[in-house]
Amino acid sequence: MNDLDRQLLRAKRVGVIGGNSPDAAALQAAEELGRLIAAERYILISGGMRGVMEASARGARAAGGLVLGILPGKMTSEANPFVDVSIATGLGYLRNALVVLNADVLVAVDGNYGTLSEISYAQIFGKTVFGLNTWAVDAVTPVSSPQEAVERIRRFFAASRSS
Amino acid sequence: MNDLDRQLLRAKRVGVIGGNSPDAAALQAAEELGRLIAAERYILISGGMRGVMEASARGARAAGGLVLGILPGKMTSEANPFVDVSIATGLGYLRNALVVLNADVLVAVDGNYGTLSEISYAQIFGKTVFGLNTWAVDAVTPVSSPQEAVERIRRFFAASRSS
Amino acid sequence: MNDLDRQLLRAKRVGVIGGNSPDAAALQAAEELGRLIAAERYILISGGMRGVMEASARGARAAGGLVLGILPGKMTSEANPFVDVSIATGLGYLRNALVVLNADVLVAVDGNYGTLSEISYAQIFGKTVFGLNTWAVDAVTPVSSPQEAVERIRRFFAASRSS
Amino acid sequence: MNDLDRQLLRAKRVGVIGGNSPDAAALQAAEELGRLIAAERYILISGGMRGVMEASARGARAAGGLVLGILPGKMTSEANPFVDVSIATGLGYLRNALVVLNADVLVAVDGNYGTLSEISYAQIFGKTVFGLNTWAVDAVTPVSSPQEAVERIRRFFAASRSS
Repeated sequence: MNDLDRQLLRAKRVGVIGGNSPDAAALQAAEELGRLIAAERYILISGGMRGVMEASARGARAAGGLVLGILPGKMTSEANPFVDVSIATGLGYLRNALVVLNADVLVAVDGNYGTLSEISYAQIFGKTVFGLNTWAVDAVTPVSSPQEAVERIRRFFAASRSS
Repeated sequence: MNDLDRQLLRAKRVGVIGGNSPDAAALQAAEELGRLIAAERYILISGGMRGVMEASARGARAAGGLVLGILPGKMTSEANPFVDVSIATGLGYLRNALVVLNADVLVAVDGNYGTLSEISYAQIFGKTVFGLNTWAVDAVTPVSSPQEAVERIRRFFAASRSS
Repeated sequence: MNDLDRQLLRAKRVGVIGGNSPDAAALQAAEELGRLIAAERYILISGGMRGVMEASARGARAAGGLVLGILPGKMTSEANPFVDVSIATGLGYLRNALVVLNADVLVAVDGNYGTLSEISYAQIFGKTVFGLNTWAVDAVTPVSSPQEAVERIRRFFAASRSS
Repeated sequence: MNDLDRQLLRAKRVGVIGGNSPDAAALQAAEELGRLIAAERYILISGGMRGVMEASARGARAAGGLVLGILPGKMTSEANPFVDVSIATGLGYLRNALVVLNADVLVAVDGNYGTLSEISYAQIFGKTVFGLNTWAVDAVTPVSSPQEAVERIRRFFAASRSS
C-alpha cells in the first residue's frame, strides 16, 4: 500500500457528507461506505473533519484509497488523520459549498444542518445525492445500505459516460 | 420620504429569504411582509435579487423602510431597484451564508434549495427563522401570515432585550 | 444631523484603505480625508476596523456622511463606532477583495500588506486608486494631500459621467 | 512513473505564483523551478491555470512530481493539463488567498497584480516568499535562479525542523 496508482489522482470523486457526531450505526455505515468507495477506485472527498468524515476516510484508507479533505479552517493540520490531501480554506461553514463543487456525486450519511446545507448546494449545483438515514428531501435519493449507495454510484457514472 | 432617520441605519435587521420565482400568493405575502417590517422600523436584509427578495423590498420601500441587499455577483447594479444599500460579493451562492450572518432574525417565504441553504446556515449560526409556506424542518417556526411573522419578531426582540 | 438624505444611500462610494496602526500624521490625514469625502456627499466605504479605517470614518461622521464597513469577522458589532452600515463576512482577510469590489474609486493612506492586497485587487478589478504616503506601485496615483485626493476623485467621477 | 509514493501526498508544499502571460524567459524559469521542486520531493501547489502556473506544473510532471491546483472557477476541468489534484473554488480572484494558505513556502516568478495579491497574503499569513524577477517588496526575498530558490527552500525547511 505504499505506492499509489497515479491514475487514481484523476478518478471520479465521491463526496461523503454527514455530521460531526453521529451515532455508532452511522459511523459504521460511513466506514463501510468509505471502504467500498476506495474499492471501486473512486476518490473520497469530504469536509475533512470528524464523525462521518473521519469514519468514511478511515474506511477508504484501509482499502488503499485516496481521500481529499476541504477544511473549514486555515490549518491543514486540523484534518482527520486519514485525509491524504487536505485543503485549508479559512471559510468556516462556507466551505461546505466547496466540498459539493468538487464532488462528482455525493452520499449523505445521517447529518444535521451542515449536511442539509451541502444537500442544498448539491441541488443548486446540479449534483446527485444518495442518502443513508439522512434528510428526507427531494434532492436526496434514499438508499438502504453503503452497498446500495456504491452500486447506484457505479450505475450513475456508467449512465453519464454513455450519455 | 426623502429623509431617513439616521437611527434606522442601526436598527435590528430582519432577513427575508425565499425563491427567485415564487407564485403570486408568495409574492403578495412577501410584499406585505416587507411593508410590515419597514413599519416596525426594522431594516430588511436579503440577497437583493428577484422574486421574494424584490417583492419584500418593494413593500419595505413603499413604507419608507431601509433595504440592504447582499448580492451574489460582482456588480452592485444587479440588485433589484428597491435595494437601498447593495453589497457585491462575487461569491455566487456562497453569499447565502452572508445574508444569514447579517440578519438578527429571518423569515422564509416559499423558497427552493437556495432558501434551504439559508435556513441551514441560520441554524448553524444560531439564528431564529420564521416560515411562511416554506420548508418544514425543525429550524423553521411556521407562521400563518406576514402579520404573525412580524408579531413573532417583535416578541423575539423584546425577549432578547429582557434576557 | 439626525436625518439623512435618502439620495445619499445611492451616492458614489469612495473606498478608504490603510493600516490598522498608522502613525499620527496618517491618522490625521485619514480623518481629514473622511471629512472631505462626506462633504462631497460621497459614501465612505472601508474594512470597518481600526486605524485609517476608524479615523476616516470619524471624519466622515463629523461631516454628516454615510459610512459602510465590510468586516472580516462574523459579528457586525466588531465595527468601529463610526460605521453606519456594517456588513459581517466571516471571510477574514479575504474580505479585502470585497471592500474593493464595492468601491467606485479608492484612496490608500499609509498601509501595510493588507492595503497592498487591496491595491492589487483594485488593479485586478479595474478600479482607480489614489495614494497618500502609501505603496509606490503603478496601480497607485500618488497625491500629496486629502484635498488633492478628493479633488482628483471629483474630476474622476466627472470624467466617468461624460464618457 | 505510473505509481506514486503515498508519502509524497503529505510532503511539504511549495507554492508557485506568477502571471498568466509571462515572457519566454519566465516560462523557462518556471518550468525549471517545477522540475527542481519535484526532484526534491516537494508538492507543487499553484492557482492551477496558465502561464507560470502551467509551465511550473509541466516541469514538475516531467520530474514525476505531484501538482495541486486551487482554481478560481467552479469546474475542475479548467485546470492546466499538468495538475494532478485540482480544487474548484468558484471564488474568482479571492482564491489567491487559498493558494497561499495551502503552501508552506512560496516562490514568485515574474507576475503582475494577481501575484502581488498573493505576495501580500503570504506576508499577512506569515509565509516566506522567494522571488525570481518579481515584485521588489520587503515580503519577497530575491533569488537569482530556480536552483537558488530551491536551495533556499531546502535550507528553510531544514531550519524549521530544527527550531
